[in-house]
Amino acid sequence: MEVYLNNNATTKVDPEVLQAMLPYLREYYGNPSNLHSFGREAREAIEQAREEVANFINAKPEEIYFTSGGTESNNWAIKGIFRSLISKGNHIIVSSIEHKSVLSPVQYLEKMRYVEATYLSVDQYGLVDPDELEHQINENTILVSVMHSNNEIGTIQPIKELCEIAHKHGVYFHTDAVASTGKVPLDVIALGVDLMTISGHKFHGPKGIGVLYIKEGTTIEKIIYGGEQERNMRAGTENVPGIVGLGKATIIAQQEFDNDTPHKIANLRDYLEQRIKELIPEIKINGHPTKRICSTSNIAFANINNKELIDALDKAGIKLSSGAACETTKSLTSHVLKAMNVESKYLNSQIRFGLSKYTTKAEIDYTIDTIVKLVKT
Amino acid sequence: MEVYLNNNATTKVDPEVLQAMLPYLREYYGNPSNLHSFGREAREAIEQAREEVANFINAKPEEIYFTSGGTESNNWAIKGIFRSLISKGNHIIVSSIEHKSVLSPVQYLEKMRYVEATYLSVDQYGLVDPDELEHQINENTILVSVMHSNNEIGTIQPIKELCEIAHKHGVYFHTDAVASTGKVPLDVIALGVDLMTISGHKFHGPKGIGVLYIKEGTTIEKIIYGGEQERNMRAGTENVPGIVGLGKATIIAQQEFDNDTPHKIANLRDYLEQRIKELIPEIKINGHPTKRICSTSNIAFANINNKELIDALDKAGIKLSSGAACETTKSLTSHVLKAMNVESKYLNSQIRFGLSKYTTKAEIDYTIDTIVKLVKT
Repeated sequence: MEVYLNNNATTKVDPEVLQAMLPYLREYYGNPSNLHSFGREAREAIEQAREEVANFINAKPEEIYFTSGGTESNNWAIKGIFRSLISKGNHIIVSSIEHKSVLSPVQYLEKMRYVEATYLSVDQYGLVDPDELEHQINENTILVSVMHSNNEIGTIQPIKELCEIAHKHGVYFHTDAVASTGKVPLDVIALGVDLMTISGHKFHGPKGIGVLYIKEGTTIEKIIYGGEQERNMRAGTENVPGIVGLGKATIIAQQEFDNDTPHKIANLRDYLEQRIKELIPEIKINGHPTKRICSTSNIAFANINNKELIDALDKAGIKLSSGAACETTKSLTSHVLKAMNVESKYLNSQIRFGLSKYTTKAEIDYTIDTIVKLVKT
Repeated sequence: MEVYLNNNATTKVDPEVLQAMLPYLREYYGNPSNLHSFGREAREAIEQAREEVANFINAKPEEIYFTSGGTESNNWAIKGIFRSLISKGNHIIVSSIEHKSVLSPVQYLEKMRYVEATYLSVDQYGLVDPDELEHQINENTILVSVMHSNNEIGTIQPIKELCEIAHKHGVYFHTDAVASTGKVPLDVIALGVDLMTISGHKFHGPKGIGVLYIKEGTTIEKIIYGGEQERNMRAGTENVPGIVGLGKATIIAQQEFDNDTPHKIANLRDYLEQRIKELIPEIKINGHPTKRICSTSNIAFANINNKELIDALDKAGIKLSSGAACETTKSLTSHVLKAMNVESKYLNSQIRFGLSKYTTKAEIDYTIDTIVKLVKT
């Protein structure tokens, strides 16, 4: 049996998404910047996708900017705000468990001594403490960036509350919502965020396309210069098929919300955790028990080497990983689990189960059986 | 009759390219950073495409870096060299007829007073003068960037000669080869360049994917931070289908070279120019008579408003534009033609014919007939 449980790393493109993209990979290949009839279909397709994304997150179409992916969007949010507010202040606050595409640009700016950075601690569940944010903001703070949910453990942060604190001090708030997209509704008005990152391939859209939501009136510098695409904020011929695919993915994700799919995925995830806990008592489930996205389970098996376990699961047809895909080429201890002060016997023993709407009960049963066999031998 | 002559703006994805991409939009959706079997197909596909691109430009695979397109590659070359050589010098030299994705990042760095920039003039054919480059290089120069051929007029620059001058002074040389790819063989060893930009969608590959060639040993800072993709030089989950498509496009382009297709396109282009010249004597062909890529013809009709002509051609089914797609949303006079000192009666009267391997003689005959009718009335 082949079981794909690496949906936090990337997801299968929904066949309907591919279907929507194909006309733009075949007949409608025009350049959307060409105002004549052959560019117009492409232009209209982009603007339709922009509306679809806007509706999905309760934004205005003109607040949606297409990028090459979540990593570029996160880089843009950090470096774009830094560059536009360079005269106002030089202090950036992020959580210590952000994705590398947030941490790394901040660390670069820090290394160059352009900014000072504060890394908010998290509790044993991976939650940021709003009081700590309140305490750390100062008159030089220009940006707070805290992810909506964590890609390794699934814990959902109190974004609304954190955002209110930032705004009370007149500071912009960015959230990396890549791990949450399609798992939990994202409403930029309800959350109050100024900037939000989305990535296509994490919710059954294509790779190579992402979004940065930028609230109207936010002063931000661009990071890719050239032509006047994306209202002169992101140069480069638009990736029309990718944009169309991402738009379609938001339509489908909304349908899945309407069908209560996230709840069904959560039930399957909870079943997986309960059964494993019954059969292998000495485990630790990393992440918040309730404030967690439906699709993610991060389970540590005491004194087990997760590399060996993942290899053995792979041979049995079960595809998953220990944490962030972007980091699995090196065998480093997860910076997320370290920040949570996970005790040493549960470090480097965790595996991450990433479910999707395609995951079946039979697949989960097979996974449970296989893991129990492997861990007990 | 529908005639697409806007191939300088973007090209039709070759059906074989799409065919090569489809498996990676369907079954092989794994994340290439996942080292287990499901990421491996994607990883191998990327490395095969890297070899294909390397072979196409006579580089080593490890000198090929995939980006989101030509614009990102040009931004990377400019800003990456600037950041890595910030302590060595602050002077950048570019030609005055570069694409916006080169000019704009340079102008941004200039505006911030990070660099001083010199814009090399061009002659009436759009050619840069190597003596002027020699004269302008100084001890603070860190980069020379001159495009391989121009996207509006097709003139091919003496890259090898310019590159030798830069190297004599220990200065890096970048060329934006977007307009030349697939039109003329690009050999990075023969040219001698340190950095070279390629874009997928300009030679029958997909949109949203590009390449920056970086010669081994070149010290350059990255511009997109995060995960360790592309040997830790370009973060973000790889656009696997796009990469595979770009690789395939290089294979096909090589076959077209072997079949002498560029020569056939040039013949059709020359026929177009000769017939129009015979039938409408008062025209000016912008660009070099011989040092020009096969696919491009930029013809100015004395005292004709090109916007009206393009509209009328569009109604007759002929799709083309006056110049760079990235600039057609504004009605600005071409910075390329201005730099060439084109006389005023031929300014804003030019149209750009961009042919491709799909262009037929019947299409060109129809185009000639239609233009002659329109210009004479």
